[in-house]
Amino acid sequence: MMADVVFVTGGARSGKSAFALKYAQSFEKRVFLATAEPFDHEMQDRIDRHRLERGEGFVTVEEPLYLDRAIGNLPSGIDVVLVDCLTVWAGNLMYRFESPGEKEIDRRIEALLDVLSKPPCNVILVSNEVGMGIVPENAMARKFRDIAGGVNQKVAALSSQAWLLCSGLPLRLK
Amino acid sequence: MMADVVFVTGGARSGKSAFALKYAQSFEKRVFLATAEPFDHEMQDRIDRHRLERGEGFVTVEEPLYLDRAIGNLPSGIDVVLVDCLTVWAGNLMYRFESPGEKEIDRRIEALLDVLSKPPCNVILVSNEVGMGIVPENAMARKFRDIAGGVNQKVAALSSQAWLLCSGLPLRLK
Amino acid sequence: MMADVVFVTGGARSGKSAFALKYAQSFEKRVFLATAEPFDHEMQDRIDRHRLERGEGFVTVEEPLYLDRAIGNLPSGIDVVLVDCLTVWAGNLMYRFESPGEKEIDRRIEALLDVLSKPPCNVILVSNEVGMGIVPENAMARKFRDIAGGVNQKVAALSSQAWLLCSGLPLRLK
Repeated sequence: MMADVVFVTGGARSGKSAFALKYAQSFEKRVFLATAEPFDHEMQDRIDRHRLERGEGFVTVEEPLYLDRAIGNLPSGIDVVLVDCLTVWAGNLMYRFESPGEKEIDRRIEALLDVLSKPPCNVILVSNEVGMGIVPENAMARKFRDIAGGVNQKVAALSSQAWLLCSGLPLRLK
Repeated sequence: MMADVVFVTGGARSGKSAFALKYAQSFEKRVFLATAEPFDHEMQDRIDRHRLERGEGFVTVEEPLYLDRAIGNLPSGIDVVLVDCLTVWAGNLMYRFESPGEKEIDRRIEALLDVLSKPPCNVILVSNEVGMGIVPENAMARKFRDIAGGVNQKVAALSSQAWLLCSGLPLRLK
Repeated sequence: MMADVVFVTGGARSGKSAFALKYAQSFEKRVFLATAEPFDHEMQDRIDRHRLERGEGFVTVEEPLYLDRAIGNLPSGIDVVLVDCLTVWAGNLMYRFESPGEKEIDRRIEALLDVLSKPPCNVILVSNEVGMGIVPENAMARKFRDIAGGVNQKVAALSSQAWLLCSGLPLRLK
């Protein structure tokens, strides 16, 4: 039986991580794949709070850039990997690889799509809606919106389920 | 018969207040519970325009902080109270109570949830989606997003109906 | 048979233009009505990319302000006009006409609604959600949100179909 790819998006504090977590907990052997790096105190607090919320029962893997390898190299016997989140990952890619002529961001996205098209286990991917506010004055922020939005479209397109969380309540997109 | 708690959210100018108003007008004895204080000219204009839009037939109560008491102390015989809006309320709480170690914001939110769990009449609560743009650079704005989003999740969770307005059109969340 | 008015909204990079384009391509004789003016390099790039994406088969008309006339004056025999987008148009109106006492913005919006109420052919209108982020500090941005949101509500109200795009996936609003 083909494993599921489940895409979960929503705004900040919309309940998307809690929804994804609850979904993941319906499986036995679970991996949490964290894309965030604690570059400051506020970020560390968020990471700690999320770790507390998910409790025991997850093996945590940290991978800010090479999601394709992290998913592709999971040991056999894993039932589900929860990736949280694609938007932070898009920011990491942009911070690390952005420069004129650089195609590495596209390559990393393609590599993720490749592994998701033949997933080694069920994959739940959390992402963020970042494009429904006023156009940012900052060119980097506009670029980031484009990259993050492109990732969302591509991952949602090949997912078997997609959900939009709003005020903690799920709307089925697919 | 248990009274209804109806949660109505949406972006700026999405038609959420008009939707809530129309809903409220299906009841006889109506109270409008305003959380906004006119601290500047633009705000006063918005308040005046909203007052004009809702016309006669509402008793207006202004309460920027203690929503639990304002709802709990409504005179008997009221059919519906329309609270507009939770996001301004979250901002008021933050402005008034935020300081290190201060738990008053959580207490005020819990007190509202308490009164909503045994509503004295039908309650319609308008709120805002503020978390679907780029992460704000300003730490206070991030904190506000967290508080407002948390309020939305908690109120939506105990509501009997929840709606997302988009371009004036309602999507049922619950 | 009455022609359709189809309203398509969504955040930045949500797939709204692609969805509208695909819809338009189900018709024979197509006009693309562009509201954007290339006032800088980034804008020119976006316009060029969009032009490339839609390929052959559209006659392109550029009209930043008088959408009513551009739609009303289409030659007969056209099956569909795709307007992309209303939010840029709202910005153009504001930039061009905003001043104390100026009613021209309202007049232009009313003129569009008039032509849409008796459409000369099928009309697909793309717009943007810009009101789901933090309230902008800039008063002009708040004003813009109000105008763009008002346009969305009015056009959606008279449309025969309305869609919200999210991560490339359509949610039917109407």
